[in-house]
Amino acid sequence: MAAQVGGGSATAPNSIADVGAGTDTNADSLAAVDLGSNSFHLLVARLDGGTLQVIDRYKEMVRLGEGLTSDKHLREDVAERALACLERMAQRLRGMDPGNVRAVGTNTLRQLRPDTGFLERAEQALGHPIEVIAGREEARLIYLGVAHGLAIGDEKRLVVDIGGGSTEVIVGQGFAPTLRESLHMGCVSMSQRFFSSDRITAKAMDKAELYGALEIRPVRELFRQSGWQVATGASGTIKAIAAVVQAQGWSDDGITAESLQRLREALVAFGKASAIQLKGLSEQRRPVFAGGVAVLRALFQTLAIERMRVSDQAIREGLIYETVGRIHHEDVRPRTVATLCRRFDVDVAHAARVRETALTLRSQLGPDWGLTDPEAVDMLGWAADLHEIGLAVSHSQYQRHGAYLLRNADLPGFTRPEQDVLAALVQGHRRKFPEDAFLALPGSERDTTRRLAVLLRLAVLMHRGRSSGLKPQPSLSAQGNDLRLRFPTHWLDTHPLTRLELDEEARWLAAAGIGLDFA
Amino acid sequence: MAAQVGGGSATAPNSIADVGAGTDTNADSLAAVDLGSNSFHLLVARLDGGTLQVIDRYKEMVRLGEGLTSDKHLREDVAERALACLERMAQRLRGMDPGNVRAVGTNTLRQLRPDTGFLERAEQALGHPIEVIAGREEARLIYLGVAHGLAIGDEKRLVVDIGGGSTEVIVGQGFAPTLRESLHMGCVSMSQRFFSSDRITAKAMDKAELYGALEIRPVRELFRQSGWQVATGASGTIKAIAAVVQAQGWSDDGITAESLQRLREALVAFGKASAIQLKGLSEQRRPVFAGGVAVLRALFQTLAIERMRVSDQAIREGLIYETVGRIHHEDVRPRTVATLCRRFDVDVAHAARVRETALTLRSQLGPDWGLTDPEAVDMLGWAADLHEIGLAVSHSQYQRHGAYLLRNADLPGFTRPEQDVLAALVQGHRRKFPEDAFLALPGSERDTTRRLAVLLRLAVLMHRGRSSGLKPQPSLSAQGNDLRLRFPTHWLDTHPLTRLELDEEARWLAAAGIGLDFA
Repeated sequence: MAAQVGGGSATAPNSIADVGAGTDTNADSLAAVDLGSNSFHLLVARLDGGTLQVIDRYKEMVRLGEGLTSDKHLREDVAERALACLERMAQRLRGMDPGNVRAVGTNTLRQLRPDTGFLERAEQALGHPIEVIAGREEARLIYLGVAHGLAIGDEKRLVVDIGGGSTEVIVGQGFAPTLRESLHMGCVSMSQRFFSSDRITAKAMDKAELYGALEIRPVRELFRQSGWQVATGASGTIKAIAAVVQAQGWSDDGITAESLQRLREALVAFGKASAIQLKGLSEQRRPVFAGGVAVLRALFQTLAIERMRVSDQAIREGLIYETVGRIHHEDVRPRTVATLCRRFDVDVAHAARVRETALTLRSQLGPDWGLTDPEAVDMLGWAADLHEIGLAVSHSQYQRHGAYLLRNADLPGFTRPEQDVLAALVQGHRRKFPEDAFLALPGSERDTTRRLAVLLRLAVLMHRGRSSGLKPQPSLSAQGNDLRLRFPTHWLDTHPLTRLELDEEARWLAAAGIGLDFA
Repeated sequence: MAAQVGGGSATAPNSIADVGAGTDTNADSLAAVDLGSNSFHLLVARLDGGTLQVIDRYKEMVRLGEGLTSDKHLREDVAERALACLERMAQRLRGMDPGNVRAVGTNTLRQLRPDTGFLERAEQALGHPIEVIAGREEARLIYLGVAHGLAIGDEKRLVVDIGGGSTEVIVGQGFAPTLRESLHMGCVSMSQRFFSSDRITAKAMDKAELYGALEIRPVRELFRQSGWQVATGASGTIKAIAAVVQAQGWSDDGITAESLQRLREALVAFGKASAIQLKGLSEQRRPVFAGGVAVLRALFQTLAIERMRVSDQAIREGLIYETVGRIHHEDVRPRTVATLCRRFDVDVAHAARVRETALTLRSQLGPDWGLTDPEAVDMLGWAADLHEIGLAVSHSQYQRHGAYLLRNADLPGFTRPEQDVLAALVQGHRRKFPEDAFLALPGSERDTTRRLAVLLRLAVLMHRGRSSGLKPQPSLSAQGNDLRLRFPTHWLDTHPLTRLELDEEARWLAAAGIGLDFA
């Protein structure tokens, strides 16, 4: 079917539509619907080189959990607003291959009596079957979604997802969850139970945290003895908490135990849910925020969590990865980098030459500049792979465009601070040494990143000819902040452009307090 | 030849280099070298879908013109710095196909006696033949480069390029120059003649402008009677003048006669070239700036130029277009849009549906909203083509990423304000109506762009299903700021997501002072 391009216009301008027009673009899309106790979510995505590319998101805070009566029926007014939401989602799903759509119901639907007829009405409204999944299955899917968004390591991970009516806690390694629990508390149920009068007092907060601790107690030893090393949180509650503590400057990255303590105190100081004014917190989230904070505090204390990273991916992403049957057992970061290179049409042969030289310079330094952490070496390699990504925008200031792309793109496997490190390296790979970009990094990354940037600059400079035939063979050593770079005899004589650029580079680095002596 | 990836590193991380590694990436590149009287330039580029993509630029202010003696020899110290520059450029050109490299010499080389031997030394240093081209041939190539960077129209264009020792003035239509002249004055020669003592006085400026006017006089009538309608300037001098008058807020777009007058007054007020402090002016440009301003003032006055746009492309781009033999006779803007869509992997079938609906809504309005200018209709269509370009970065805030890309990309054929209009339309196509982005536009574009944005929003909203089967058939009319949108009976009943989103849209538009009544 040919798209009718500009058909309705008297002055139809030239159009791009002849390329691929008329194809139904939902054909290769996948959708996941999640009917939670607090919100209903719809995610439409496709896989681009193994990386999930989001095409559309839709969310309504239906608060299904509110409608659950004590005899496990659903109040009709809540049922109707839920069905209306599903009908709207159905419009978005029309035309999609039913095999590519998966819908799951969680806590509230689990509790609902099977004879209420709501599930059938919901399936009819949505136009797709809805699986009501058990808490442990929910935990498995969450882990799958989170794991696809994390850099793999050998470490054991603790993953937490706070829903409206339940909280899933998982320990796993790689893509395999080894311990999965679903706890009967969530941001909505805790808020209803302890903060329903709108008031937030220290006493109510204590009670809520104690209640949470008691919920966790039966599995506490299992989790404490599981040997997890890194904690990651998913869900709207945890994302909102992280956004707030970071906006307040209480935490640089993710959520720390201390920042959570300060957040609790701030909530008590506000005294009422309706009075909370915190940057990063949406109006809709406010009424259920105190309950969510109490759940997370209970988890931090009971499981001795010191710091939690935040994942953008969770159950819906897990559903989509499972639908396409892609369960990778490698670090997702190289895949992410390769996808980006392809998407932005990077000259990979050139990038590979720069990478090789940068890594050679790094290994020549040995321990001299302290750049021995394998993570740092990885970052240098990836920054080399990606350093020209901004050329897709414009040659002018392309180092800045590249940094913009790396700060703003979804990069599965990379944490937010890692994205910032990559962005700073790319921004600093030529021209002025961007001290601002380094100063904006977490203190622990600053010096290492500055030094990695110097190596990347030197590698880029030596390969300006972009030719595979012009391989420089310099040797590099360092003493304190001073670098000593030596080329084979006469090499610089036959490469006068490199010599000039090294002169200029020495001035730039001197301004940054780094000496460069070359010959 | 396989690239040795990470070969020098003890901890070689995962690499992207297996894709396409080992190819010499200079193979499909083209280079143009321009040996001017003020600067030597090197441009490396490739053609991506007919659009020139810059890969590398290199420039040195050699000031060759300074070395020209009265008996048309070249001072040896200047010859040597010129040869050293060419040797550096030669390093960058190594490995390139000689058929893809073109080098030309202009004014100073034209004046040099053929028996000085400099040209032979220069060719040896560069490793490529150098054509010394006549002023009219230089003018032709400049026009070719500029024309490829402009939106075509039927209008006759005046193109001006101020070099170090000569100034080229051309009139043409489309890609065909009809009148070409090379004048014997440039920014270096004028500065040497009238401002050599570093002083800038009103009297010296008057003299310089008069001298310039006398140079132009022999061809003045030819140009005045040629019927040109739009003036465009290229060259470093003109770009620097535009940057300065815009940074000072004296002109919104390009250079106006009035802004040039204010610039002249400011230079006289500084009194000395070495004392000039103007944002946008580089230190290297300072000594030759007053001469360049005088040349441009003479042109404005003698040819009655009121406003001049600035082109980023000139002789080097002309050389490259000529090398590949691509001389298009159509508006380059659709090609630019198509290239961007391909580069950022836009779902063109979806974009075509949005375009069709947006243009249909526009034509349904008839004259009601004043959107009858064909240029405005074109902009709406292109914004529809490009509205999802930011998805290549991230779904989150993709309207902002799209606007970033459109503001920063090289978009041949689009003027800077046109890029800003496209960016504002894309940024405003969903979510909050971005009044800031509209306010930042030139006053003449503001209201039209806001209204175009409303049409684009409605079209995008109706196509959220991304399906070719769900074609809405609404009708739209307007009265003042109020829109009336009518769907076929029951259509909204079967599209509850659209109904909800129209509700939300009505609130957003109300905040922007636009009424939306729908049923």
